[in-house]
Amino acid sequence: MQLEAYLEERGRFIDGELVRLLPLGGAYPPEIRQAIHFAVFSGGKRLRPILMLATAEAIVGELPDGAVEAACAVECIHNYSLIHDDLPCMDDDELRRGRPTVWKKFGEAVAVLAGDALLTVAFQILALGATREIELSDRLLLCSQELAVASGTFGMVGGQAADIANEGKDIDVSVLDFIHKHKTGALIRCACRMGAILARADDGQLMVATRYGENLGMAFQIADDLLNVTGDEAKLGKSVGSDRQRGKNTFPKIHGVEKSRERAAQHADSAVDEAKRLSRPEVLIELARFVVERDY
Amino acid sequence: MQLEAYLEERGRFIDGELVRLLPLGGAYPPEIRQAIHFAVFSGGKRLRPILMLATAEAIVGELPDGAVEAACAVECIHNYSLIHDDLPCMDDDELRRGRPTVWKKFGEAVAVLAGDALLTVAFQILALGATREIELSDRLLLCSQELAVASGTFGMVGGQAADIANEGKDIDVSVLDFIHKHKTGALIRCACRMGAILARADDGQLMVATRYGENLGMAFQIADDLLNVTGDEAKLGKSVGSDRQRGKNTFPKIHGVEKSRERAAQHADSAVDEAKRLSRPEVLIELARFVVERDY
Repeated sequence: MQLEAYLEERGRFIDGELVRLLPLGGAYPPEIRQAIHFAVFSGGKRLRPILMLATAEAIVGELPDGAVEAACAVECIHNYSLIHDDLPCMDDDELRRGRPTVWKKFGEAVAVLAGDALLTVAFQILALGATREIELSDRLLLCSQELAVASGTFGMVGGQAADIANEGKDIDVSVLDFIHKHKTGALIRCACRMGAILARADDGQLMVATRYGENLGMAFQIADDLLNVTGDEAKLGKSVGSDRQRGKNTFPKIHGVEKSRERAAQHADSAVDEAKRLSRPEVLIELARFVVERDY
Repeated sequence: MQLEAYLEERGRFIDGELVRLLPLGGAYPPEIRQAIHFAVFSGGKRLRPILMLATAEAIVGELPDGAVEAACAVECIHNYSLIHDDLPCMDDDELRRGRPTVWKKFGEAVAVLAGDALLTVAFQILALGATREIELSDRLLLCSQELAVASGTFGMVGGQAADIANEGKDIDVSVLDFIHKHKTGALIRCACRMGAILARADDGQLMVATRYGENLGMAFQIADDLLNVTGDEAKLGKSVGSDRQRGKNTFPKIHGVEKSRERAAQHADSAVDEAKRLSRPEVLIELARFVVERDY
């Protein structure tokens, strides 16, 4: 299969569904609407929703009911977290994907509110299947809980808080591991689990999806850290070397580039091994390889 | 009945349930946990969860399954909104309920993250009933959607955005009406609707709960604006006259104190009329009167 073409096609599909599902018309005042649109449609890879759909398909061979809404919900959470992470009181970033960040373009108040709105609308979109079919409601409510746990203090917020609290400090490996697993890993793991839940996975399949997501998340984050050291600014849309400049704790900083490459490859291999336990593993295998081989 | 004693008893009940349901142990780093605890347990009236439980009881005579979780979820949303509203880039408040605001005590980054965490955990708590009983899942998913809509751009976030955008400007009555209905009204209306949904209200009862909530929300907000003009600082725990000082658009500013009192009383009366259509209206009636007669 042609992974590039697949990613592009799925990315366009997610974009279309986000246009359909996000409340971009009518919400007042217009600044919030514009800020949400600006943030969500800025050339993201749509990795998390693509992973969710691919995990569901690896188990059940088609897109199960509720999967498209769940995929868009995860992407909303991801984008809210970028908006808030960029705020002056957090990472203080002025550029993302080669454009001004939301607070830089719309002001801090609008950025806080647009992030809040995207976080909220994720749960609104996820609940769109309410009253449609009663067993679907149960699965969607489970997904809603997965998404909340992965996004809150036990997940992304906890990871971001630990990252901020330790910026510029020398930390040991276990703290870096905590930050990676929570700040990036939790939502990627959650995307795979939600895909499995909507595909009516049995306990064994759900565990496979979980471990696949955990390994892919670690591979993704280490690769991300590496790109910040060795990547091409034009392709990345952000400054190479920025992590080091601001004293960010990254995998290459603690372990060096060579060992980081090894570890990323090991996690990708483990993800591939897990994927092979499912009945249609091809796409998940290619996605695991893509995550460590990508240059953007 | 003794409303004061009822409010106190219900307030303590909600506090206990929040202690049980909020993830206050274990989440790392501790600052977020402390900030959430500091914000949530600061002597709030618990009006929204009390209204939700009372609406459910007015329909079905007891606390239905899921109602306690839903009540705590609404209170989490309310508290997240206070934390973010107080931020320097928003209302820039340093005092709330006689204590420093969360950003003032814990810093802006922790305040943004603690608000995000509380917003997220609301949906986590609401989904606790997943897999318990399949028809409950359907009602909880509906509640999840109600809560998201009331909190996002079509509700609270939209209202706060409009309020911020119009601070210091002369606005007409329709904009003030929009701000009130969305910033405060939407979540109060939502609390009543969620109570009705969990009580398995029929369409007629749901409409009554909705109109009760809308009128009570307007009465509450006008009374709040009035207290900021004529209230007692010691009882309120905040500065009287602060709205006027910063050019906030309030009901008394546009209509004057006398007309504001009339309008608040009219809305409370309308809420009472609605409550009387339910089979056990007593508590809802007293709550409507309390909202306009309170001095705190």
